[in-house]
Amino acid sequence: MASELTELEEAIGTLVKNYDKYATRGFFSRKRGISKDSFQKMVSQELHHALMHTEDKQAIDDLRQTYDKNQDGLIRFHEYWTLMGSIAMSHLSTMEEPEKDDS
Amino acid sequence: MASELTELEEAIGTLVKNYDKYATRGFFSRKRGISKDSFQKMVSQELHHALMHTEDKQAIDDLRQTYDKNQDGLIRFHEYWTLMGSIAMSHLSTMEEPEKDDS
Repeated sequence: MASELTELEEAIGTLVKNYDKYATRGFFSRKRGISKDSFQKMVSQELHHALMHTEDKQAIDDLRQTYDKNQDGLIRFHEYWTLMGSIAMSHLSTMEEPEKDDS
Repeated sequence: MASELTELEEAIGTLVKNYDKYATRGFFSRKRGISKDSFQKMVSQELHHALMHTEDKQAIDDLRQTYDKNQDGLIRFHEYWTLMGSIAMSHLSTMEEPEKDDS
């Protein structure tokens, strides 16, 4: 994408770069995804406000397994994007709560 | 989300705020989504680097219909998130191309 990107395009790029940072190529295969250890690191370092229990290794692993749809031990990009979507959806719902009536 | 967010959390917030900016509540219903006109505005103003033909109203409407899975005329959040994921995926694939051998 060109340099003078819009704020939205920059943000999409940030989500992609984050995936790229934590997703490694399997040793013997072209398969690419976020491994169990990298997922632990990502959640505790990058999502410790958006998610709870980010110091609880078991909770993080449970989360990983929830999104590892094909259970191959790797979080592929589409699985990563689904996780990001769930976080975004909960953020949206906090924005949608009707303003409290202060009167 | 708390104020000192990580870069990733800020970026997720930006995608959510963008949806919130363009998604309006239906006049008679709580239904919420991005209308045909707002989708035109969003694509031409926010995605004119990431997408092509963003000055072509018909092309934008074709794109909108592709992602309006239930064909209710509104782009709901999950449909919006799928579109963002497709843009992200194409951005990722440009990052994954093997470096050109300059020798």
